[in-house]
Amino acid sequence: MDLKEGDHVVPIFNGECGDCVYCHSDKTNLCKKFRVNPFKTVMVNDGKSRFSSKDGKPIFHFLNTSTFSEYTVLDSACVVKIDPQAPLKKMTLLSCGVSTGLGAAWNTAKVKAGSSVAIFGLGAVGLAVAEGARVRGASKIIGVDINPQKYIKGQMMGITDFLNPKDLDKPVHEKILEMTGGGVDYSFECAGNLDILREAFLSTHDGWGLTVVLGIHPSPRMLPLHPMELFDGRRIVGSVFGDFKGKTQLPHFAQQCMSGVVNLDEFITHELPFSKINEAFQLLLGGQSLRCVLHL
Amino acid sequence: MDLKEGDHVVPIFNGECGDCVYCHSDKTNLCKKFRVNPFKTVMVNDGKSRFSSKDGKPIFHFLNTSTFSEYTVLDSACVVKIDPQAPLKKMTLLSCGVSTGLGAAWNTAKVKAGSSVAIFGLGAVGLAVAEGARVRGASKIIGVDINPQKYIKGQMMGITDFLNPKDLDKPVHEKILEMTGGGVDYSFECAGNLDILREAFLSTHDGWGLTVVLGIHPSPRMLPLHPMELFDGRRIVGSVFGDFKGKTQLPHFAQQCMSGVVNLDEFITHELPFSKINEAFQLLLGGQSLRCVLHL
Repeated sequence: MDLKEGDHVVPIFNGECGDCVYCHSDKTNLCKKFRVNPFKTVMVNDGKSRFSSKDGKPIFHFLNTSTFSEYTVLDSACVVKIDPQAPLKKMTLLSCGVSTGLGAAWNTAKVKAGSSVAIFGLGAVGLAVAEGARVRGASKIIGVDINPQKYIKGQMMGITDFLNPKDLDKPVHEKILEMTGGGVDYSFECAGNLDILREAFLSTHDGWGLTVVLGIHPSPRMLPLHPMELFDGRRIVGSVFGDFKGKTQLPHFAQQCMSGVVNLDEFITHELPFSKINEAFQLLLGGQSLRCVLHL
Repeated sequence: MDLKEGDHVVPIFNGECGDCVYCHSDKTNLCKKFRVNPFKTVMVNDGKSRFSSKDGKPIFHFLNTSTFSEYTVLDSACVVKIDPQAPLKKMTLLSCGVSTGLGAAWNTAKVKAGSSVAIFGLGAVGLAVAEGARVRGASKIIGVDINPQKYIKGQMMGITDFLNPKDLDKPVHEKILEMTGGGVDYSFECAGNLDILREAFLSTHDGWGLTVVLGIHPSPRMLPLHPMELFDGRRIVGSVFGDFKGKTQLPHFAQQCMSGVVNLDEFITHELPFSKINEAFQLLLGGQSLRCVLHL
């Protein structure tokens, strides 16, 4: 156990037990016991819940963390100890979207200096991809979103070019191929939409382009790619939590945020009391906020 | 021009001009001008054919090589000069299937010593994958084919285990997951069948498994994978000509075949006069031959 009372911590939905074949591998951050599982509702060790309502009925856990709460109970595999000097408000961003986006650029795609990037969907995840690509020295970072306000925000996180599909008279991927002399080196799908996924795939340069899937795809539709299209040398991979091993790697990532290597200043756009949680979700769904901190 | 009269050469359908952005990249073997294009029927420089029938009608080119012929005309980008001491009969194998399979194991998947491999479809390409995996030191090489004769042949090319889907009471991938404690590190689809492609994908270990697509898929059906399945950490890529850059890398590969690093002895199963070309195709389609050399 690496934790004691009073530690400053970040909860993570994609845990790291440190002991399983996956945690021992440097190729994955999917822990055998504590990986993302939206259907898991109890603690691993005894199959029980740690919460109950006033009248004694169990309240179940969600995504290893259950954090819309003043107090919570987590497995230690899902708790990352960070520098007590780190600003806690910003550190909340490391629990999910911002780590996912930056990590997708750094760990999954391994964006190289001088390379070109296209990001489809400029929410917190997409903008964190931009910030990650900027830190890695990408020379062209194309943001794609139907909300024109995103360009203003995006410029603070590394976006160098902006495309609004509604303003184009051709498919986005054709425009990107023109802008980049054959396609970007890396594209990121942060929208959870299969038509956009196909645009992201076709926006990369044939021969070596890589598409990273970050969006959640709830529909049962399959990948909109023909197997022969893989012979054009384009690749597609998924990324969970930006391929960060949480307990191993987030403490260093937190330091990078503190020292200014990574700039988190623009990601928290709103703060509200917990009683206005529904308003916070509306701001998110409406594309008006990136992240809203709720105060209890 | 690196060629002169009398040179011993191997023709390649996936050429290498040496000059384009693709040839200058170490990430792809798809040349801009001379990549695989089944619809190209003329020479690149003047858009004309070099063949004609006795009554003067043009005969068109196919796949850069047009080699069912005593003489042919190729761009020099599609001709690889090899050691004049190399046995020409075996070197014919390097023009396509054997390079494709070995290269897929070496260059595309980069099979590591001690790793596990599953190969779906044990024609010449699949068996060349096995030989490539054997040379790289894979400890388990599972061949999958509905033709039980393939196991006998396969054992000479590194196959350590054989599965006939017709003999199993469960899907092949479930059996492979049992045999390997969670899945193989690499799977290769050499059958051109989407149901088999899905089995190959699911046969790999989650977290890091890689599926290489080698089969030709003529149906318009899309990849039978759901985007969320990419979040299990399995990857899928295509491989053309085993990712070999032909002119740069085949001369060394030919040397490896000559020196016994790679064993090509088992791949040529038949030799026939050119007049029996249709019989040769029947042997191939019937799973009776791997490669048949036709003599003019």
